Amino acid sequence: MNRKAIFYMLGLVLLLEAALMAFPLFVALGYREFPTVYAFLKTIIFCGALGGLMAFFSKTSTKFFAKEGFVIVALCWIGISLIGAIPFVLTGAIPNYVDALFETVSGFTTTGSSILTDVEALSHGLLFWRSFTHWIGGMGVLVFMLAILPKNKAYNMHLMRAESPGPQVDKLVPRVRTTAEILYGIYLAMTILLICILIMLKMPVFDAFCISFGTAGTGGFGVLNTSVGSYTAVQQVVIGFFMAAFGVNFNLYYFMLIGQWKNALRSQELHLYVGIIAVSTALITINIRFMYPGWAGALKDAFVQVSSIITTTGFSSTNFDLWPTLSRTILVLLMFCGACASSTGGGLKVSRILIGVKMVHSEVRAFIHPKSVRAIRVDGKPVSPDVRRSTSIYFIVYMIIFVFSMLVVTLDDFGLVTSFTAVAAAFNNIGPGLGVCGPIGNFSSFSILSKLVLIFDMLAGRLEIFPMLVLFAPVTWKR
Amino acid sequence: MNRKAIFYMLGLVLLLEAALMAFPLFVALGYREFPTVYAFLKTIIFCGALGGLMAFFSKTSTKFFAKEGFVIVALCWIGISLIGAIPFVLTGAIPNYVDALFETVSGFTTTGSSILTDVEALSHGLLFWRSFTHWIGGMGVLVFMLAILPKNKAYNMHLMRAESPGPQVDKLVPRVRTTAEILYGIYLAMTILLICILIMLKMPVFDAFCISFGTAGTGGFGVLNTSVGSYTAVQQVVIGFFMAAFGVNFNLYYFMLIGQWKNALRSQELHLYVGIIAVSTALITINIRFMYPGWAGALKDAFVQVSSIITTTGFSSTNFDLWPTLSRTILVLLMFCGACASSTGGGLKVSRILIGVKMVHSEVRAFIHPKSVRAIRVDGKPVSPDVRRSTSIYFIVYMIIFVFSMLVVTLDDFGLVTSFTAVAAAFNNIGPGLGVCGPIGNFSSFSILSKLVLIFDMLAGRLEIFPMLVLFAPVTWKR
Repeated sequence: MNRKAIFYMLGLVLLLEAALMAFPLFVALGYREFPTVYAFLKTIIFCGALGGLMAFFSKTSTKFFAKEGFVIVALCWIGISLIGAIPFVLTGAIPNYVDALFETVSGFTTTGSSILTDVEALSHGLLFWRSFTHWIGGMGVLVFMLAILPKNKAYNMHLMRAESPGPQVDKLVPRVRTTAEILYGIYLAMTILLICILIMLKMPVFDAFCISFGTAGTGGFGVLNTSVGSYTAVQQVVIGFFMAAFGVNFNLYYFMLIGQWKNALRSQELHLYVGIIAVSTALITINIRFMYPGWAGALKDAFVQVSSIITTTGFSSTNFDLWPTLSRTILVLLMFCGACASSTGGGLKVSRILIGVKMVHSEVRAFIHPKSVRAIRVDGKPVSPDVRRSTSIYFIVYMIIFVFSMLVVTLDDFGLVTSFTAVAAAFNNIGPGLGVCGPIGNFSSFSILSKLVLIFDMLAGRLEIFPMLVLFAPVTWKR
Repeated sequence: MNRKAIFYMLGLVLLLEAALMAFPLFVALGYREFPTVYAFLKTIIFCGALGGLMAFFSKTSTKFFAKEGFVIVALCWIGISLIGAIPFVLTGAIPNYVDALFETVSGFTTTGSSILTDVEALSHGLLFWRSFTHWIGGMGVLVFMLAILPKNKAYNMHLMRAESPGPQVDKLVPRVRTTAEILYGIYLAMTILLICILIMLKMPVFDAFCISFGTAGTGGFGVLNTSVGSYTAVQQVVIGFFMAAFGVNFNLYYFMLIGQWKNALRSQELHLYVGIIAVSTALITINIRFMYPGWAGALKDAFVQVSSIITTTGFSSTNFDLWPTLSRTILVLLMFCGACASSTGGGLKVSRILIGVKMVHSEVRAFIHPKSVRAIRVDGKPVSPDVRRSTSIYFIVYMIIFVFSMLVVTLDDFGLVTSFTAVAAAFNNIGPGLGVCGPIGNFSSFSILSKLVLIFDMLAGRLEIFPMLVLFAPVTWKR
């Protein structure tokens, strides 16, 4: 274990966080919210000093392996959350540190689950920070660092693999740094586009920024107690389309940018993703039609909610906990499905489901034609045995963590639906569940123990489990 | 596709069913229930004639492969259910044929879910038949036929593989027929032992037979509306122990019989199975203690219910739907866990979970020590790549079928808990779920469509999915 490299990277990430906290500081300054300004100032000084010392005293090391990559990613995400929670406590907005940590982890992991009963009571600086953590976490804090750090470190690919979601992570271009730059460039451009459109549609500028951060990172923190329910139908539909767009594999946008439209549009994952959204929206629209005066309203809420849940954003335009069983079941299933690989969304990922279905199909075919070849292809390319194995193991480890989390959360005795969807919402980085933690509820009444387990689940869900397992495996730390 | 072999085997199985129906016929005769006697008589004549014609006109074929094995098993189970349902309709006890089919499939697959609101209104002959189907289905109808048919057919192993539960099916001895005889011998002996003990404990003789059939097959049909709740605590605990015993891998009993105790007792699957029962019973006892006057009552109900659910029997000694969330969650998780491979129980099977956990462990280790060998061992023997692959694919196909079943069942709008546990109870061959289909409820109010889906799930669960998929795959029937 290359401990120096771990400390060095952690130090750099904390320096980066200190720099990023300047944004909410300036927002608070603009709104003359001085307690918030001081809270951020103190946190920035502490975070910068700590990060600087760690980076300075740990020499950068020449190389490290996958193991260190996992540990660095897990520790960095825990580190930025521990420090990112401080302003909430210092301002007194969230007096309990575990609650503040829950809110911050929920932000960085783009979950959007909240322990706040009254979001509108927060200062603008804190609201901005909450939403900004979604944006930082969406594309990944280490990918961001790779984009701005000096290039050609040998270890960069291990970090990118450990932080990026999906069964396979490809470099778009030979250099990891350039890949990171391209991804962040697309991400930034799409975010700015959404901010501009929302402002043109007469959304208040502050709301437009925060909602765009939450949409881009597929996070789901809003600035109003009604989430996005108080905005106009047109604004909601725009947000719905952009949520869906941020759930698409970003590699496809890169292909489009360099003119390879065919390559992008023939993606089987994209077809399945769009298909699931279309079918789910249609089924829910029919199912909830009787609750609305016309088809348009039902279609709007069905689409916004489907887009919000499958991309694991978690904005709510209506209290979908009142919908019929079929519609609620579809939403719960979409929670697990999740968005595309290499997007900002969470969940199991459409590509894993695609590979899983193809594996089952190939298995049935092998029973019928024992001599047939078991190769599986996605987009015409064969899926390697390594990816097949890791995909099926991902399903298993996912279920194991889900089961143990649920056992702890059920101690709070909120009933099966609340317990199940609370874990599903945290682990898949959605935000709201059903019941107590539903769209009009929140996570404040859960016990400290449940909150800690849910914090673990949010991190494990965002980092796709293995970094957290490697971090906590005793064998990692043996000499 | 060797269609003659399929017809021949189906014919033989129907002849066997006609013979087995003589038992309820004699019971009805003994109780002088003449409408029931006539119903069985007519069914036996029809079933025997049909089976005889099919067997006579389809010559036995020299050999067939895995494909035919799957199709035969799936068709035989559907066939015996279609005909086994007739007496319920002819007597007027269950006027609707789909309901009667549901009840019969529930019997043969050892599920124990019922559409009856008043079990005690049935005649003794029908009650006996209902419970007897559990006993026939428990060890497998084709395994039974293998035990009584002339030996040394080359295809026997394919049938046994297709019908027996678990990731691996071993012949205990070189001859398949002898293996089937040994398994049925142990099964019969244990059933007789339980009947004798229950009679000695002063249970009515008729009840002792029916309850023993339900226990041995891990089915769960009772003869009273209170399931096993009206029997004495001692009788319930005896049933609890025997349920757990019938959930053990029968190969272990064979090892014990031939003196290889060490071999039997070092089984990792057995350790995990006993461990899960012990831990679950302890947790639930503590969790429900406040609902009972003392520890003894809580422990009794916790043990009987844990044993009943993990073995997928489904007897209820109390209305566990009133238990706190943690206890209900543990029971729901046990529904999926299921019993040991090569037992009469359903569910995912403890051995699959064991292999799954070991695969995850080996994956994490490989991240940390990339050069370590990925071999997995159970009971000291390496698990072949084929078994590993089929185990992980089993988890995936299981989830896919579960999801689609649930989508249909939710159309009935009974809420998430009822819909989820209805599918879980049918697919894992448990019996009762929670909510509408809970221990004091039943499946009568579900729609015809839901019942058909649940019938499919019960068959798919008992036959471990692939026979049903192969039967319905269009490619199977292409020339």
